[in-house]
Amino acid sequence: MYCGTVNDLENQTTPFLMIDLPSFESNLSKMSDALPGTSLRPHVKAFKSTAVAQRLYAAGHTAFCCATIKEMEGMVSVGLSDDLLLANEVLDTNRLGALAKEGASITVAVDSKETINAAVAGGVSNVLIDVNVGLKRCGCDVSEAGNLAKYAKNVGLNIRGVMGYEGHLMMVQDRATQAEMVKDSMMLLLKAHENVGGPIVSAGGTGTFDLNSWATEIQAGSYLFMDTEYAKLGLPFAECLSVMSRVISTAPDRSWAVVDAGLKALGMDHGNPSVQDGIVGFCSDEHTTLYPNKGQPQVIWKVGDLVSLSPAHVDPTIAKHQNMFAYEGNTLVEKWPIDLRGW
Amino acid sequence: MYCGTVNDLENQTTPFLMIDLPSFESNLSKMSDALPGTSLRPHVKAFKSTAVAQRLYAAGHTAFCCATIKEMEGMVSVGLSDDLLLANEVLDTNRLGALAKEGASITVAVDSKETINAAVAGGVSNVLIDVNVGLKRCGCDVSEAGNLAKYAKNVGLNIRGVMGYEGHLMMVQDRATQAEMVKDSMMLLLKAHENVGGPIVSAGGTGTFDLNSWATEIQAGSYLFMDTEYAKLGLPFAECLSVMSRVISTAPDRSWAVVDAGLKALGMDHGNPSVQDGIVGFCSDEHTTLYPNKGQPQVIWKVGDLVSLSPAHVDPTIAKHQNMFAYEGNTLVEKWPIDLRGW
Repeated sequence: MYCGTVNDLENQTTPFLMIDLPSFESNLSKMSDALPGTSLRPHVKAFKSTAVAQRLYAAGHTAFCCATIKEMEGMVSVGLSDDLLLANEVLDTNRLGALAKEGASITVAVDSKETINAAVAGGVSNVLIDVNVGLKRCGCDVSEAGNLAKYAKNVGLNIRGVMGYEGHLMMVQDRATQAEMVKDSMMLLLKAHENVGGPIVSAGGTGTFDLNSWATEIQAGSYLFMDTEYAKLGLPFAECLSVMSRVISTAPDRSWAVVDAGLKALGMDHGNPSVQDGIVGFCSDEHTTLYPNKGQPQVIWKVGDLVSLSPAHVDPTIAKHQNMFAYEGNTLVEKWPIDLRGW
Repeated sequence: MYCGTVNDLENQTTPFLMIDLPSFESNLSKMSDALPGTSLRPHVKAFKSTAVAQRLYAAGHTAFCCATIKEMEGMVSVGLSDDLLLANEVLDTNRLGALAKEGASITVAVDSKETINAAVAGGVSNVLIDVNVGLKRCGCDVSEAGNLAKYAKNVGLNIRGVMGYEGHLMMVQDRATQAEMVKDSMMLLLKAHENVGGPIVSAGGTGTFDLNSWATEIQAGSYLFMDTEYAKLGLPFAECLSVMSRVISTAPDRSWAVVDAGLKALGMDHGNPSVQDGIVGFCSDEHTTLYPNKGQPQVIWKVGDLVSLSPAHVDPTIAKHQNMFAYEGNTLVEKWPIDLRGW
């Protein structure tokens, strides 16, 4: 999708999401080399964009996972429905059942009799047994997985296997320690799998993509863009998403500058964004105040300058915008609508 | 706008924004009593909804302020254009100028020659001189305000007065201290006003609405909904906005529960949301993990229960949703589209 309406950086309305396209493509192909085809199940929650999903599909990743029903519906609407997993528990399954009736291949995570009953009631026939592998969130106890699978079979469901997200280990910064902990988590998942059966062992994420050799498929998405938090791990992926802003004000002595991207344009749960050549002071709704680097009396920016902010958490940052703009240098190449937001 | 499609709480898709309508109406009328007519300039950034703006207009508040050009455009599109202030600096003024050409009354904040020149270039003829009254953000130095006003007059602009947001004082919790600090800030603004002229002295917000007796108009919006942060101030407004979620999983021993509203449904810059009858553990993209209250071994919730989360910061929470649903008890009365999101 070439977008000819705005073709240079300076004329773009700020704030906006800028993707460095060569880095994005490099991230995509590095992961495809490591985890080709369906050994990667890209996580749609990271990008919420069918345009990005189409690129992954074209690279051979034909099975996806989603975090919301809205994401599932959007993927089906553009025909990316070969194998869609809702990697979350859900009780209101009628919308998922409607997608299955349309011919989409729909699988949902279950971790209780209630969610199994909901799958049946809504008309979803494929499930993964979600197992708690250490994160205090969803997933049944390892010892219960076999019983739940039996219960699900008895009510007519097709068990495709197990899922167990080691989310508590994504940001462990010592890689050797992280590798040991991932192994321990996956031993739990494999134990559950023994009693559940089915071809799929689904787990992992960007932070453990190269350490988790037990899962049959890795659920990752953030690797496409990265953020300042993931960058600490030393993974082979480049940060390629910026929140582009413009300086609208400077202090009289230029001891600070103010740009027009604030906390409504940035995922804030991992803290403030970062900026090159300065320090982020604080974010307001539609502003971020920037200070000079230590030892510098003045900011380097003047009113009108474009400033690139690097978000601390990329997934919720993307979810706040309507489009991503993919650039090669200063030239806009593609506009990717973020069309899978909401619920 | 009566919405008959979903008329009870249990059947609503989660997560969603629920407004307790009687409390909302009480907040609205309490502020209208304190600051009638144009002595309040409601801040559209708080609610981003023309449906909410229509209610304020009907209560006599005919002048509004906005934080983004998109908000200004949306207000004009529904005819709420008697007196619209963009209370932010902006360089790309063509879209504002287009609104003025349509006949809307448009005013923009300026704090530099660059932003004054931009107003002229874009075709905006009314400005407020934005003065820094202590917040390290936008606004010129008090000593520069008169010179900027002269410059603006010379290039043909109409100076409506001054603006100075004491945002650094909104959350001062000792009210006597806060009152003193607001006074000091406003003395700076009045000093600037002496050299600028014009009928308007615009300042304030929800946290200082009753302490700022120097401004001719108060810019407030969050008071309509409140949040856990504003609730600490003991203001006369009630928290009436909840992020409604559903329990989708519980730990085997019910030492935690997981609901389906996460950090993509909540403004996270002021921290985690709060919950009655339990403790918020942590938020993931689409989940929040809840623990029991201290001394209780188990959470009170079971799978399928609706749980109300109270956000820590209401403005960015609202900006993450498509609609607000206004209820009286368990009955849906109105649906308010959040139609002014984005930029």
